Amino acid sequence: MSYRAPVKDMLFDIRHLAGIDEIAKLPGFEEAGFDTAQAVLEECAKFNQEVVAPLNVAGDENPSSWKDGQVTTTPGFQDAYKQYAEGGWQGLQHPADFGGQGLPKTIGAACVEMLNSANLSFALCPLLTDGAIEALLTAGSDELKATYLEKLVSGEWTGTMNLTEPQAGSDLALVRTRAEPQPDGTYKVFGTKIFITYGEHDLTKNIVHLVLARVQGAPEGVKGISLFVVPKFLVNQDGTLGARNDVHCVSIEHKLGIKASPTAVLQYGDHGGAIGYLVGQENRGLEYMFIMMNAARYAVGVQGISVAERAYQKAVEYAKDRVQSRPVDGSIAASAPIIHHPDVKRMLMTMRALTEGCRAMATAAAAAYDAAHHHPDAEVRKQNQAFYEFMVPLVKGYSTEMSLEVTSLGVQVHGGMGFIEETGAAQYYRDARILPIYEGTTAIQANDLVGRKTARDGGQMARAIAAQVEKTEGELAKRNSVAAKAVLKRLSAARKAFTDAVDFIASQSKGNPNAAFAGSVPYLLLAGNLVAGWQLARSLLVAEDLAAKGEDKAFMEAKIATARFYAEHILARASGQRDAIVEGAESVTALSLEAF
Amino acid sequence: MSYRAPVKDMLFDIRHLAGIDEIAKLPGFEEAGFDTAQAVLEECAKFNQEVVAPLNVAGDENPSSWKDGQVTTTPGFQDAYKQYAEGGWQGLQHPADFGGQGLPKTIGAACVEMLNSANLSFALCPLLTDGAIEALLTAGSDELKATYLEKLVSGEWTGTMNLTEPQAGSDLALVRTRAEPQPDGTYKVFGTKIFITYGEHDLTKNIVHLVLARVQGAPEGVKGISLFVVPKFLVNQDGTLGARNDVHCVSIEHKLGIKASPTAVLQYGDHGGAIGYLVGQENRGLEYMFIMMNAARYAVGVQGISVAERAYQKAVEYAKDRVQSRPVDGSIAASAPIIHHPDVKRMLMTMRALTEGCRAMATAAAAAYDAAHHHPDAEVRKQNQAFYEFMVPLVKGYSTEMSLEVTSLGVQVHGGMGFIEETGAAQYYRDARILPIYEGTTAIQANDLVGRKTARDGGQMARAIAAQVEKTEGELAKRNSVAAKAVLKRLSAARKAFTDAVDFIASQSKGNPNAAFAGSVPYLLLAGNLVAGWQLARSLLVAEDLAAKGEDKAFMEAKIATARFYAEHILARASGQRDAIVEGAESVTALSLEAF
Repeated sequence: MSYRAPVKDMLFDIRHLAGIDEIAKLPGFEEAGFDTAQAVLEECAKFNQEVVAPLNVAGDENPSSWKDGQVTTTPGFQDAYKQYAEGGWQGLQHPADFGGQGLPKTIGAACVEMLNSANLSFALCPLLTDGAIEALLTAGSDELKATYLEKLVSGEWTGTMNLTEPQAGSDLALVRTRAEPQPDGTYKVFGTKIFITYGEHDLTKNIVHLVLARVQGAPEGVKGISLFVVPKFLVNQDGTLGARNDVHCVSIEHKLGIKASPTAVLQYGDHGGAIGYLVGQENRGLEYMFIMMNAARYAVGVQGISVAERAYQKAVEYAKDRVQSRPVDGSIAASAPIIHHPDVKRMLMTMRALTEGCRAMATAAAAAYDAAHHHPDAEVRKQNQAFYEFMVPLVKGYSTEMSLEVTSLGVQVHGGMGFIEETGAAQYYRDARILPIYEGTTAIQANDLVGRKTARDGGQMARAIAAQVEKTEGELAKRNSVAAKAVLKRLSAARKAFTDAVDFIASQSKGNPNAAFAGSVPYLLLAGNLVAGWQLARSLLVAEDLAAKGEDKAFMEAKIATARFYAEHILARASGQRDAIVEGAESVTALSLEAF
Repeated sequence: MSYRAPVKDMLFDIRHLAGIDEIAKLPGFEEAGFDTAQAVLEECAKFNQEVVAPLNVAGDENPSSWKDGQVTTTPGFQDAYKQYAEGGWQGLQHPADFGGQGLPKTIGAACVEMLNSANLSFALCPLLTDGAIEALLTAGSDELKATYLEKLVSGEWTGTMNLTEPQAGSDLALVRTRAEPQPDGTYKVFGTKIFITYGEHDLTKNIVHLVLARVQGAPEGVKGISLFVVPKFLVNQDGTLGARNDVHCVSIEHKLGIKASPTAVLQYGDHGGAIGYLVGQENRGLEYMFIMMNAARYAVGVQGISVAERAYQKAVEYAKDRVQSRPVDGSIAASAPIIHHPDVKRMLMTMRALTEGCRAMATAAAAAYDAAHHHPDAEVRKQNQAFYEFMVPLVKGYSTEMSLEVTSLGVQVHGGMGFIEETGAAQYYRDARILPIYEGTTAIQANDLVGRKTARDGGQMARAIAAQVEKTEGELAKRNSVAAKAVLKRLSAARKAFTDAVDFIASQSKGNPNAAFAGSVPYLLLAGNLVAGWQLARSLLVAEDLAAKGEDKAFMEAKIATARFYAEHILARASGQRDAIVEGAESVTALSLEAF
C-alpha cells in the first residue's frame, strides 16, 4: 500500500487536543462525538488508500491534457471522482439543508488531509468546490443557493475560484475583468482569468465558476470588485442543463508539479458575453471572496501536512529497506538498513515532528472554528473566531513552508534514487512547491498576520496565545520526566522569543512599517513554530498520563519522543528567528535597488 | 542575456580574501597575479554567457536521449563542447607538462562557477574529466599518463568516475565489480555500474572510464578495491583509436533535474570482458578515488554557488519587472515593482548573502589549496592542507544545502509564475536537488567532518579556525560603523556556538558516537555558516577601507550591506544549530525502529 492514513495520530489530536467530546456538546454537533470521528476516519482512510492513492503516480506521469478547449483528466480520475461524490465525501462539512452531513471541521479536516495525502492533484477539485459552497452559503441569494448548492454539495457539479489575471496576482486591485448589467438582472462578463484550478475538466457535467469582476462605474481598487456565479452551462428552471455559457478554456499550464490538476486560462465573453449572476451586493466581492479564501487557505495548509505525511511514509519505507554501511556505534557488524544511521533518523524525525506538529496545530485551529460557529455563548464564539483567524495564516504559511523542508528531506533520505523520477520521492518535492504560493503566498499570509492579526489589536491576541502557552509550561513544570523538562526549556524560550517579536511588530507597524514587514515571514514562521511546538507539548502531557495508565504504551512513547525532538530541534530555531525579526530589520532594506 | 557572470564579486574575493598577489609569489604561479585573474575571468565570462548559458533551457526541454546503446546529447552541446575544448578551458588548472595552463585553483574555481552557472548539465562533463585527470596525475603509471593525460587535458576525450553499483552507493565496501588479471598485465573487468555521469555521450570520440573493482582474492571491504582505466575505445601505440571495448551503456535515467547530463547504467564485460589497466597498485583504489572525489566534492560545492547565483539573477530580474501592490511604507502611491516590498527584498537578500558567503568561503579554501601545493615551506603546506581538508566538506555540504534554499526562494519570488516550467525558475529548483546527494551526500560529508576532520585531532583544526575568526572579531571591534558592530555581535555568538559544538563532538565521538553523529549535519551547517559569515566579515573590513578611499563606492556599500544581512539573518541561526547539536542528540535516536 502506497499510503496508510495516520488514523491513530489524527484521533489522538481530535480527542485530546481538539476535545471532540466538548465539540459534540455544541448545538448541531450532537452526533459528532469520538465514535463518529473514528467511524468516519476509518471509512475515509479505506476509500483514500484504496481508490485515490493508487492514482497519484499516474497523474504525474499522465497529466491532464488540453485539446480544442476540452480537458481530459488522467485515466482513472473520472471513476474515482464518481466514487468520491457517491460516498458523500464532498458534503462532509456542509449543512444538512443542502444534502451535507454537517460534521465539525475538526473531523472534516482529517478527511481533507487524507484525500490530499492520497493525491494532491485529485483533491484540488473538491477543495475548490468547498470554497464555492462557502461563498454561496454566506452571500448567495436564495435563488442561487437553490440552483447550485445541492449540486455542489453532492459533488454532481464542481466549483472554481477565479481571481487571478495576468496583471493581477496578489494584487486584486488590478482586476480588469468587467461585468455589464443586463435588463433581466443578470450580467455579461468579459475578461481573462489565469491559474484557474480545475477551470475545465471532464469529471462532471457542469462547472460553477465564481468570478471577480468590475461593474462599470465601480470605485477603483479592491472596493470596486464584485463576485459573480458564471456556470459553464446555464441552468434551466427545472435544474436541467441549458445552453453552453461563453466561458472557454484556451489552454492549461505546464507545471513543476500537481500535474494532474488542470490549471486553466479561461476566456470570458469572447462570443458576446458570459452570463453571470451577482453574488450578494455589488462591490462587496472581495469580502465574499475572503470567505472562500479563508476556507481555502486553511485547506492548503492541510495540503502541506498531507504531502509531508506521504513523503515521510515513503522515506521510512526506503530507510528500513535500503542496506548501506555499518552503524557508527558498532551495534551491527555488517552493512545495515540505513534507518540505523543517526543522520537518517534525524531526517526522519524532522519529517515526522514537523508533520505531527502541524497536524496538531491545524486540529486545534479546527476546534476553534467549530466553537466559533456553534457555541451558544456569543463571547465564546468571538474569542474562538479571533483565535481561528490568527491561526489561518499559520496553518497556511507554516505548514506549507515546512512541507518544502519535509519533501526535500524525503528526497535526501533516498540518496541518488531520490533524484530518479521512477522512485516517486521527487514528485512530492515538486508537488509541494506550489503550496506556499497559491491562495496567497507566504508573504501575503505574513502581511495578514502582521497587519490585521497582530498590529491591529496591538498584539493582544498574540499575547493571549503566549499566555496560553505559559499555562502549558506551568503544567510541564510539574512533571519530572526528562522529556517534559527538555520540552519546557525550549517551549519557554520560544514563547519569550515570540513575545519579543510581537512587541517589536506592534511597536513598529505604524511608525516604521518597513521594519515590521521586513520580519513578517520570519514572524509567521516563529509563530507557527511556537504553536506547533506548543500543541506537541500538550500532546506530551496527555501521552505521559495515558502511558502511565498503560494505555497504548508504544504509541504514547512515540508521541513523547516526537514532542521532545520537535522541541530540541525545531523550537530551538526560535531564538535565531527572533533575532532576525527584532534586530535584523534594517539590513533587509539597506541595499539600494540599483545594487541588486 | 540570461546569465551575467559576477566577475567583480569574484575578483574582489580573489584579490582580498584569497590574496592572489601572494599566490603569484609561489613557485609555478609567477604569471598568476591579479591581472591574469581578471583577463581569464573576463574571457571566461564572455564564453559562458554567449555560448554555454543559452543552451541551459534547451537541455532541460530536450534532454540527452538513449537509443541502442548510443546517447545523443541536446542539440547545440556538441558545438559548445568543441568551443570549450578549443578554448583550452579544460586545461586551466592542469599542468603545463600535459598541455594545461597550470593556473591556481583560486582562479580556476571562478571559471568552474561560471561554467556551472551557465549550464549545470553541460558543466558536469568537464567536471568529471577533471577528476579523471587528478587520479591519473596522482597514481597513474608513466604509460597511462602518456596515453591519456594530454587527450583529457585538451578536452579531446572525456573522463568518468565509476563507483556506484545498485547495492553500493555510499557504502563502497559493497562493490562487486570484478577485475581478472590477464597474462599481458591488463585486466578483464566485469560488472554493472550505475549513476555514471556522462558515462556515454556523443561529444568526443573516446571516453576514459575510471572504475572501482575487486581483483580476485582481494581483502573484503574497502581495502580490497582497485582502480582501473577502462577506455570506451582501446588506444593503439601511436595514440589512434583501436577496438571498441566491452563497456556498454544499457540505459540512462529519467531524472528530476540536470536532464541534459546523461546518467548512464554501464555494463562491463558482457561480451568477454572489458579490458582495463590498473591505476597505481592493487587494493589502493579507494585512496586514489578519494583524490578524484575531493576535487569533485569541491567542484560540486561550487555547483551549488553556481545555481544559486543564476537563480538569484533570475529572481532579481523578475522582481524589478513585475508590478503588484503598493509598498507598505507609502513611498509609492500606486502598484509598484515587487522589489519594493520588504519580504521580496528579504528573499533576494537571503539569496544574495548565501551565494556571496559561499563564494567567499570557496575562494578562501581554493587559496589554501594553492598554498598547500605550491608553498616552498613544508610546514606552511601542511597547515594549508589541513585547512583545505576541513573546508572540503563545508564547501560541498553547506554550499549545496544552501542552494536548495536559494533556488526555492527563487521560485517563491516569482509567485505563481515560478511554478510554470516555461518561466525557468523551476529548473534551478530541480537541478539543484542532486547537489547535496552526489559525490557523497551531506551526511557523508558531515561524517567526514565529524570523524576525520574534527574528532581525529581532538578538535584542534576546528579550534584553530575559531581562533582565526576571533582575530577578525578583534578587527571588527576597532570599527565604529553600525554594520561592523552588528556583524561582530553575530560573528562572535556564532563562533562561540561553533566551539561549543566542537567541544561536544570531540568529547562524545569515542564513548558515545551516536550522540556525536546525531548532530553531524547540523554541525556541518553551523561550521559552514560560520566560515561563510566570517569571510563576509573579512569582506566588510576590506570594503569599508576601500569605500573610505572612494574606490568603487556603490559596490563596496553593497558588499557591506550584504555582509551585515548575512550576519543578522543567517549567522543568527547559529545558536539554534548549537542547541540542536549539544542538547538535542538524545532525541534523535530515542524513537524505537518499530515506531517509525
